[in-house]
Parts: sequence; structure tokens; C-alpha cells
Amino acid sequence: MIDKIKEANKIAVERILKSKPVLVGIGRAIEVIPGMDDNTILHAGPPISWDRMCGPMKGAIAGALIYEGRAESYKDAVKLAESGEIKFEPCHHHSTVGPMTGVVSPSMPVFIIENETYGNRAFCTMNEGLGKVLRFGAYSEDVIERLKWMEKTLYPALKEALKIAKIDLKQIIAKALHMGDECHNRNVAATSLFLSEIISLLLCTTLEKKVINDVVRFIKGNPHFFLNLSMPTCKSMADQMAGIEYSTIVTAMARNGVEFGIRISSLGDEWFTAPAPMPKGLYFPGYSEKDANPDLGDSTITETAGLGGFAMAAAPAIVQFTGGSPKDALNATREMREITVTENPSFSIPMLDFRGTPTGIDLLKVVETGITPRINTGIAHKEPGIGQIGAGLVRAPMECFKKAIKRYVEKTGV
Amino acid sequence: MIDKIKEANKIAVERILKSKPVLVGIGRAIEVIPGMDDNTILHAGPPISWDRMCGPMKGAIAGALIYEGRAESYKDAVKLAESGEIKFEPCHHHSTVGPMTGVVSPSMPVFIIENETYGNRAFCTMNEGLGKVLRFGAYSEDVIERLKWMEKTLYPALKEALKIAKIDLKQIIAKALHMGDECHNRNVAATSLFLSEIISLLLCTTLEKKVINDVVRFIKGNPHFFLNLSMPTCKSMADQMAGIEYSTIVTAMARNGVEFGIRISSLGDEWFTAPAPMPKGLYFPGYSEKDANPDLGDSTITETAGLGGFAMAAAPAIVQFTGGSPKDALNATREMREITVTENPSFSIPMLDFRGTPTGIDLLKVVETGITPRINTGIAHKEPGIGQIGAGLVRAPMECFKKAIKRYVEKTGV
Repeated sequence: MIDKIKEANKIAVERILKSKPVLVGIGRAIEVIPGMDDNTILHAGPPISWDRMCGPMKGAIAGALIYEGRAESYKDAVKLAESGEIKFEPCHHHSTVGPMTGVVSPSMPVFIIENETYGNRAFCTMNEGLGKVLRFGAYSEDVIERLKWMEKTLYPALKEALKIAKIDLKQIIAKALHMGDECHNRNVAATSLFLSEIISLLLCTTLEKKVINDVVRFIKGNPHFFLNLSMPTCKSMADQMAGIEYSTIVTAMARNGVEFGIRISSLGDEWFTAPAPMPKGLYFPGYSEKDANPDLGDSTITETAGLGGFAMAAAPAIVQFTGGSPKDALNATREMREITVTENPSFSIPMLDFRGTPTGIDLLKVVETGITPRINTGIAHKEPGIGQIGAGLVRAPMECFKKAIKRYVEKTGV
Repeated sequence: MIDKIKEANKIAVERILKSKPVLVGIGRAIEVIPGMDDNTILHAGPPISWDRMCGPMKGAIAGALIYEGRAESYKDAVKLAESGEIKFEPCHHHSTVGPMTGVVSPSMPVFIIENETYGNRAFCTMNEGLGKVLRFGAYSEDVIERLKWMEKTLYPALKEALKIAKIDLKQIIAKALHMGDECHNRNVAATSLFLSEIISLLLCTTLEKKVINDVVRFIKGNPHFFLNLSMPTCKSMADQMAGIEYSTIVTAMARNGVEFGIRISSLGDEWFTAPAPMPKGLYFPGYSEKDANPDLGDSTITETAGLGGFAMAAAPAIVQFTGGSPKDALNATREMREITVTENPSFSIPMLDFRGTPTGIDLLKVVETGITPRINTGIAHKEPGIGQIGAGLVRAPMECFKKAIKRYVEKTGV
């Protein structure tokens, strides 16, 4: 039996190593995301009903309904959300991932990532920046205005550019790991490299220089821009690990701000959940842990694919943003080797003698060692309407893994 | 006396720490470099006459004379060089630095860096790329053509862009040190950050999109582009340390391919020289140490200002280009603390707990400890006309420091 598991896990991680994620285009959510319709709103994490959602998720959904022209105020939006007219579904159920609240509404433009090796696609909205932004639960006029600018200016420009050529995201991530990013909470280098690629394409379009410059300034002004490309890149790879009989590899980790959920390759679409933990981190001036919402977002797809907390050793500078020391960063990656089945040679870390990032979290190893996956994360205010208040570190709760192994035993009879 | 020296050295390094180097413009060498005229050609390192120059320097000078339209072939150029009509002078004598052969001829466009704190300027040509390029001694038709393209397209475009705004180079270097560069032999991040800055300016000019795209592609295609900005940045800072009575700080290290020379703050313009050492490194396919020219170039100005070999710990990925291990990279920076008088808080290294790069090489400490400055470098073929064949590591020869301390004792009577 152990051989069967090992073989299954080997197949799973080989798929991630062979993946070739590429940015192929950009489209409106309703037009490109499978199963999306006018009354669907996607959110981060495992399934959750409106009444159980956390503050920032309610805020972001209200914002999305205002953005869509379906509500005029938070109160209005809450009424509509409560009416049952809107379906709330996890991003993960639609080949999509979203940072923090992960809210995707029908008109929002989304990146289309194709895993060229296998042909599957993954989707993600565009990153708005830090602070008072929709994904952290803010919904004020300026938030909506920014989203409208992104829809009317940024989206059509990038769409034109991507008609000219695709962008190899695996290569950007590989380079960024040699440039101090871990591609979850630090995307400074990846954003800069992406900007170099997209600018060459933008300059080949018929767009006016003024428009191109607005786009350049927006991307340049947001060092987290690449997060929303890193995430669907990882989703397009991780999805290929799913559905392999006997495999104990974790194929998704995601949080809705109330629960943390994981999925296991051989256990289908089931989520194994536990209460979302509270991140430890650094807060923006004026905020503290008492303002913080529990852990939130699909961005843990990066850790699932061997980046983020698993690639911390590549990004010692991140500790200024998340807390901890550079030595902790090295040790975080080393520790994650204990619970993974391989290393990704395409994603190497110079400071660890160019060894690859630990890849393929093995449910069995997590339970055996008692070591849970390390995660870098942003921190949202627990009330709707405020936004990001910090960034920090957290671990996936052991309870998810315990529930999963119980089901695995039930299913396989081991 | 020791107090006088300490005080003098403190003043010297404070000047480097307070410096604010900014890219203010770009101009033709003859129009902006002080003391340049139609018959002057500048070269790297301490002074050297034509007959004693190494192969690559002769090749680069021949290339420059062809580029200037003063010769049609290498043979022609040699004849002119031998005639005595051309004056050969060190870049360093004209507030200028040049990588490898460092050749600057009158029509070449040069960056103008201003140290805003003190008002002094430094100059450097634009980087052509790797391999078969003038600065490594190549002079074939394609080399000259590229230089002409740089003069006719790249130069006027950048000139227009820089009329709109200056670019803060200290900030770019500070960021790049958090992104895996040491800003001598690895400038991947700094080049990407510079590109982000210049593109925003280019898009505000009246230049055609096609021209802007050609410029973007050229810069993007050459990860060493920023070297020729890092060097004059360092020159503009290091020059401020010169001429302080009693100071034993090294204000320049430079090689002409035959000799390695240093200058000391309190010892005026005198060069203290020793035979240029042979770098140890990694060679491009088909070449080996027997093809290599001894150490060459003014790029050691980066080490003089606390970057390059002194900031190795920031750039573990560089060992793929220069040889050595990531641990060696950490230790290189640690070792350089032994021979410097301060650390530069603006240039911090995450992996060393954000301590600043070792700054201000003290002649006394070098002689006392027997530890000589570490240098990252490119390797040129020893014959003219070939170009770069590798990159590696080298140390400044102790003999220079011994000569300098002898003169220091003579002068001060200590």
C-alpha cells in the first residue's frame, strides 16, 4: 500500500514539475470563467453562506454589488445578498483563485493562465494595490472608482497587449526567486519583470502613449501586482495534481476568513476544514491584532505549489513586511522539506545552494511529523469597509489534516 | 596621530554615506567630460602608454578610432595610435569611469551622474551588452554598428527622457541589494528597476512608440545595462572621500589590464600600482584561463564604494556567473568588514540581518590584517578583437597597499 501511495504521489508532483503556466489573455469573468453567471459571486476559501461570512468578505461582496450596479450602498447590498438572489461559490470550484476575500463578480476582468503542458486554465482578478482595496473588504467610492478604471483602461490595454504574445510565467517566477521574491507576499521582482514583458507588448499595440503610461504607472506603483498572476499560475499547476487514486498530496489550501480548508488529491472535491487561525505579523500604524480578521484568502495556493512560505529562504527581505528574521526565512524553507515529497528544480533558491523549493505537501508527512505548512499572508481588518491592516505569518491548522486522514482511511481502508 | 587618522577617515566615509547620486542627463563625451578634446581617448585604470597596453585595450582603442571615423581598420588605428597624435588618459583623471578597457572617445554618449549633496559629477558610457563588445576589446563591424545605433537611437531617446525628470540611483541600488544584485557583476534587478523608471519618462516624450520599444528591448535584453550607471554612481560618491588630510581611505581602485592601481585620500592623485592579477572564474564555452587577460577595468570603483565584492552576500545567485558558493558570498561580505571603517545603512543586506555594506577601505586595516579587497569582475580575452570570455573573482594585490603605506609614512612622518 505504501508503494501505491508513493507511486501516486510521484505522479502528482511530476505533473506540477512538468507544468508550463503561461499568461494567454484576459477576459471578463462572466465570459471566461466556467460556470459563472450574472447572479454568481465567487469568494475565497471553502464554501460558506452569507450569514456565516466574516466582515471583510461581506464588505467585499457589497463592494462588488455596488461595482456591478446592483446596489447603491452597503445596506442595499446586504439586503440583496440576504435575499438569496445571489449565489456565493468558492473560486476554487471555478478554476479560479482570489487573494484575501477573493471576491469575483461577473464584470470583473480576470487573467487567463493556461498550463500549456496539460491544457487546463486558471483565472484570477487583477491586483488593486495595498491598503483600502476591495479584496481586503473596502467598498468606498474610491475603491469602486479604481476598479472601474481597471475595467475601462487597464483591462482593454492588457487585453490588446496579450493578443500580440503570451507571457511565460514560470520563467518570471524562476527569475524572481533569484531576486528576493517568494511570490506570495513579496512580488517586487516578479512585478518588475512582468512590467518589462508587458511594456514591450503594449508598445506594439495601437494604444496611445498616454494610456500605456497610465498602465505602466499603475503596475509600477504596486509591487504586489504579480500576486494575482502568481496565484493562478500555482492554481493551474496544483489542479493537475488532483484526482489521482491513492495520492495523499494536498491540492488546495484556502481560507474564507472563518474556516481554513484543504483538499487532497485522491479525496475528490471534499474540503477538510478547521477554524481559520490568526496570523502573527506586523501591523500598519494605528492597528493591532485585536482589529485583525482570522486568516483569509486563496493565496495559500502558492504554498500548495511550493512558493510563498515554502520559498521563504529566497526572500529574506520579506521579514520587514511579515516579521521574523532572515534566519527564520531560511529555516522555514528547510522545515517544509520535511512535509513535501520533492523539490522543484525550476524554482531554485540560491541561498540554499540552488536546491528547488519544497513541493507537494504530503498529508501523511504532515500528520507523521506534526509539522504544518507555513504560510505568508496579508491581514484584513475584521470589520467590513476598512481594508488591509498588516501582513504576517501563519500555519495551516492540524485539524484539517486530521480530518483528511480520517477520510482517507475510511476510503482506502488502510 | 591615530586619532587624527580616525577623525579624517570618519569625515571621508560620512561623505560617502551622505552622498545622493542622481542621473541628471546624458551628453556626448567631448561636450560634457572636463578636459576631453578631439584627440583624447580615455581608458581604464592607472596611466599607461600605448606601447605598454594590453591586447583588449588596444582592440578597444582601435574600435573607438574606427567608430570616430579616424581609422578604417585595426592596422590603420594602430598606426594613428603610434603616431603620438592621440592622447591616452585615465578615465579617473576626468571624473569618469569605464568598465573593462574603459575606452571613451569624443563622440560617445555618456551618462551624467550628479552627487546632489556635493554638486560634483561623474561620467560613464552606456553598456553595450556581453560577449563581443568594444569594452572587452572587440572592434568588428557589428560592434561599431551597435555603438552607432546607441549613438543615433538610444542616446537621443534617453536624453529626451532625462529632460523630463532625474532618476534617483541611490534608491535603485538600495532596492536592488534586496533583490539579489551586488551592482557590479550582477545588475539584473537594478536594470529592471531602471527600465521601469526610464519607460515612464520615455512615454512622456514625443518619441515614436517604435523607437521607445527599440530602446526598451535593448535595455531589457542586457541585464548588465545598469553596470554603467552603478559605476559612475560609485565614482561620484568615492570622489568626495578624496583629499582629506591624514585620511587612509582608498578612494579609487582601477586596472588597465597591465597594472592594478589604488589612490589614497590624503595622498593626492598619485597611483600606487602593482602587476594586475589574474581572475579566477567561470569561462564561456571554448575558452579557458590561458586565453584570459589579467584583471582589467574601472569597475572596482563599485568595491571602493562598498558594492560588488563587498556586497556579495546580497547576491548569492551571482556564483553561477563568477564561481564559488552562496556561503562564500556571505563570507566575502563579512570578511570585508575587517578592512573597512563603516557600514552604509542605505545599502543594507537582508541575509546579514540588514546590516549595511562594508564601506570605506582603510589602507591601514588592509596592511594590518593582510586581507585585500575582494572584487567581482568580467574576463576579457588577452588578444584584441575577441571580447568577453568569462567572469570571476579576484583580489586587489597587496603590493599596491604596501607602496601606499610607504608613501604615507614618508609624507606624514608617522
